[in-house]
Amino acid sequence: MPLEPRLVPPPTKGVSSAAKVLDDWYVACESTALGSKPLAVTFLGTPIAVFRRADGTPAAVLDRCPHRNVPLSMGKVRGPNIECGYHGWQFDGDGRCKAIPGLCGEVDKGTGRNVPAFATREHDGWVWVYATPDVTPERDPYRLPLRDDDRYTTVYQALDMAGSLHATAENALDVPHTAFLHSGLFREDGERQQIDVEMRRHHDMVEAEYFGEQRPEGLLGKVLAPGGGDFEVRHVDRFILPCIAQVEYQLGEGHIIATTALTPISDYETRLFGAAEFRFPYLSARFMPTKTIVNALKPLALKVLGQDAAALKKQTRNVQRFGGEQYVSTEIDVLGPEILRLLRQAERGARRPPRERPETKRLQMLV
Amino acid sequence: MPLEPRLVPPPTKGVSSAAKVLDDWYVACESTALGSKPLAVTFLGTPIAVFRRADGTPAAVLDRCPHRNVPLSMGKVRGPNIECGYHGWQFDGDGRCKAIPGLCGEVDKGTGRNVPAFATREHDGWVWVYATPDVTPERDPYRLPLRDDDRYTTVYQALDMAGSLHATAENALDVPHTAFLHSGLFREDGERQQIDVEMRRHHDMVEAEYFGEQRPEGLLGKVLAPGGGDFEVRHVDRFILPCIAQVEYQLGEGHIIATTALTPISDYETRLFGAAEFRFPYLSARFMPTKTIVNALKPLALKVLGQDAAALKKQTRNVQRFGGEQYVSTEIDVLGPEILRLLRQAERGARRPPRERPETKRLQMLV
Amino acid sequence: MPLEPRLVPPPTKGVSSAAKVLDDWYVACESTALGSKPLAVTFLGTPIAVFRRADGTPAAVLDRCPHRNVPLSMGKVRGPNIECGYHGWQFDGDGRCKAIPGLCGEVDKGTGRNVPAFATREHDGWVWVYATPDVTPERDPYRLPLRDDDRYTTVYQALDMAGSLHATAENALDVPHTAFLHSGLFREDGERQQIDVEMRRHHDMVEAEYFGEQRPEGLLGKVLAPGGGDFEVRHVDRFILPCIAQVEYQLGEGHIIATTALTPISDYETRLFGAAEFRFPYLSARFMPTKTIVNALKPLALKVLGQDAAALKKQTRNVQRFGGEQYVSTEIDVLGPEILRLLRQAERGARRPPRERPETKRLQMLV
Repeated sequence: MPLEPRLVPPPTKGVSSAAKVLDDWYVACESTALGSKPLAVTFLGTPIAVFRRADGTPAAVLDRCPHRNVPLSMGKVRGPNIECGYHGWQFDGDGRCKAIPGLCGEVDKGTGRNVPAFATREHDGWVWVYATPDVTPERDPYRLPLRDDDRYTTVYQALDMAGSLHATAENALDVPHTAFLHSGLFREDGERQQIDVEMRRHHDMVEAEYFGEQRPEGLLGKVLAPGGGDFEVRHVDRFILPCIAQVEYQLGEGHIIATTALTPISDYETRLFGAAEFRFPYLSARFMPTKTIVNALKPLALKVLGQDAAALKKQTRNVQRFGGEQYVSTEIDVLGPEILRLLRQAERGARRPPRERPETKRLQMLV
Repeated sequence: MPLEPRLVPPPTKGVSSAAKVLDDWYVACESTALGSKPLAVTFLGTPIAVFRRADGTPAAVLDRCPHRNVPLSMGKVRGPNIECGYHGWQFDGDGRCKAIPGLCGEVDKGTGRNVPAFATREHDGWVWVYATPDVTPERDPYRLPLRDDDRYTTVYQALDMAGSLHATAENALDVPHTAFLHSGLFREDGERQQIDVEMRRHHDMVEAEYFGEQRPEGLLGKVLAPGGGDFEVRHVDRFILPCIAQVEYQLGEGHIIATTALTPISDYETRLFGAAEFRFPYLSARFMPTKTIVNALKPLALKVLGQDAAALKKQTRNVQRFGGEQYVSTEIDVLGPEILRLLRQAERGARRPPRERPETKRLQMLV
Repeated sequence: MPLEPRLVPPPTKGVSSAAKVLDDWYVACESTALGSKPLAVTFLGTPIAVFRRADGTPAAVLDRCPHRNVPLSMGKVRGPNIECGYHGWQFDGDGRCKAIPGLCGEVDKGTGRNVPAFATREHDGWVWVYATPDVTPERDPYRLPLRDDDRYTTVYQALDMAGSLHATAENALDVPHTAFLHSGLFREDGERQQIDVEMRRHHDMVEAEYFGEQRPEGLLGKVLAPGGGDFEVRHVDRFILPCIAQVEYQLGEGHIIATTALTPISDYETRLFGAAEFRFPYLSARFMPTKTIVNALKPLALKVLGQDAAALKKQTRNVQRFGGEQYVSTEIDVLGPEILRLLRQAERGARRPPRERPETKRLQMLV
């Protein structure tokens, strides 16, 4: 073996933001995506077969038939069961083996023929799956905050991001990149103005509120505050364990909460399930229905998401090329390091107990 | 490094049915596939160059020129030798270096310039290669049972299967999957009937005989027993070390032996060389020649093989995703576990001596 | 785990000609390839962003923004700096952080925000980069020998070779393969003639001179010695540390020095930068300008390079398949083993001091 070169700094190895928080819920799919055929999803490398039973309720089992290890997601739904396509073994939503065609003896004996099963929930347009099998979850999945308020319209969008859950969440909640990556769409990299930021650490959540921010540039600003006048902007970015990244904008009566539920497919692949809850009473009353506005905004939103997806992919490819992450942060990387801290605590099983008041920290930023 | 998640069962690792039986013969290619150009084949990851010498006999050497490691299969045959395409070194069928163009000194000195050579045989339409180089084989390759009986017609077909030799052999000899995977083609998953099975363990072979089976459904049944009457069905499935999976059907005078010689390319890739020996005296005499019947059956056989290939691929991909196999068997998995036992014994160099009578085991199955 | 097979020779592992000589210069790109956009290059697996500053001088930094690890080569040049496309951080040619948009505090504090920087040089049509960052190189890059002699015409060509730097250099300087790999183009594998070879080992270079060689066959011979007469052929092949493979032909007044600078991208990928310096006074004066001759020769040269590239690819794929190299050499492999010796010494930091006279060795070869 040749000696290692002496002069080059060693490559980064094993430093990864990929966190394995498995005692919690993730979105498996949009409700509309789960029809009569089973669906294959993956949580942090664990393949899961999600299916909709004949009674309409979702169920989820490990995506491997215990018999010959074929993916159950390639089989069929039979009443309350999922049936393997190779030999026809059937399993119910609790993972119990219910049929072995050809076998003369008893089918459901012991647990050796069962398959691990995952708890499921369905609400607010998404099917949630608990990432650890064969346990009763202690907590409930996240609920969209405005889903029951019928003044709001909700639109959904799913997208695959080539980044860790952490990198994807940081990107979704990061302000400074917008002037560069989304140059011209969102914020301009021109005249800058100093604003105040308050970062608040809760036990299972971290949020940053931006004070003194101008109306957003571009189409978004025009929609939220059509008069262009002297509205007070309320802008909060949040991360909620284990997977919610949320951006909230309020200008006068205009209000958007854009929630993304991030499902970690593998260490460096994240499926993003977006739900934007909108209300534009001024515009809607005077000019056009909310749906029309939302449709007009969608190409812009998809362009922004596409630029973010491209940047995450470049970042991830480079991180993998170097064998790990080696980040340098400054104080304007407000939420990224905090999100990682929350994920690491949860991964170690060391979530903090709820507390009455968050820890707060204030800083300045040029936007 | 983050802690490992605490609640998820550990993935299966290192459990594999891939057996490395190297002191035996495998089919390298069909005789018709070996012309004047060398052919590259792989046995359990070992690249081998097979070539047909000018006198028509096959030869096989390690597919790596000892000089600069270029594959010899990319060169040419020169009389009794294979010639490397990079610098023109030549090797005979025993692997001895016979030419080094440009060299003034002696070519064939010592063994350092030789290439490992593999024993070869050619009969019954196939070229066989012994998987260990530079040894004199103790045994002979398998011979097709009816090849010299001219009442039979033989057809050949080669196909790549994305599975271990074991998974491919089990699939070829497994009865219960046919009602599901080949639903409608072979057996129906409808009214089932209980039959008796006798499994017989020989020293280098295992076979299962099915008693009381009805005439096969579909085209195959019609061909074997055109009258549809009350024929006694004889059906035996066999595995013979190291690589033969054989299905035999007899209904009256109709008789098929379908032999597949399985060549393990790598742990999870197997090349299947099929030879079906047929005799349909009733049909052939009255309606049409055997060749016509065989041609009519071929699309059906290829469809069944294609479904098997697809199932093996799904199984193998899933096994690799989980890091290994984790099978649960029942008594109707008659031959699979027995085949693995034979392969494991042979791999350890612990083949059993021949015995007078096989061990037998009887069981029931619904078909 | 199954036992390892007992009879097959163990595969070669870990024997590799890939040498990591990092305290030296390599060509990053042709000068014409470096415009206003940064360029991503890789030296032995280390990604480097090369850019041309506003003043025209080249600079090179590690291709990873220290902030969020996105490749800097995907950003833009801003005056003397390179700017990351994600958050707009800027770095000068010495790797110092010069801008962090949005940050209120001081940017250039300490070295934590800097990026490793690589020394650069530009001359003779190539941009050179020193492979170790943040050091002042002790030596200078290689210079083309005839670049300042205006009787010569120089043409450039870059090409990727799927081989280690060593395999690519040996191929470029190897005589015996030409009769086989380039059969019909260069040398014929027909009547052979014995010639003398003198191999000379210098401290940082090795060369082989061929005496008694006939005029090269084919187009090259016709161009170098159009009369076909009794010219004395001077033919020298050279390797100069760390990356120069050079072939020199002189027949009468015709003279070519074909220099290839080999940049090791990874262990088994090498980018070849070729520069051929030509002079054909006889032909140029009587029949056609040098440029016309060069253009006529280019398709031949590209065909030869293409055959070499294909052979290297086959060799490399096979070496990787077997897990390493296992070469057998004879005395007519004149330069290959010597080049490896030089590379290994340099890799260990054990280059020899200059000496007055080279060690010489004489041998015979049939060409």
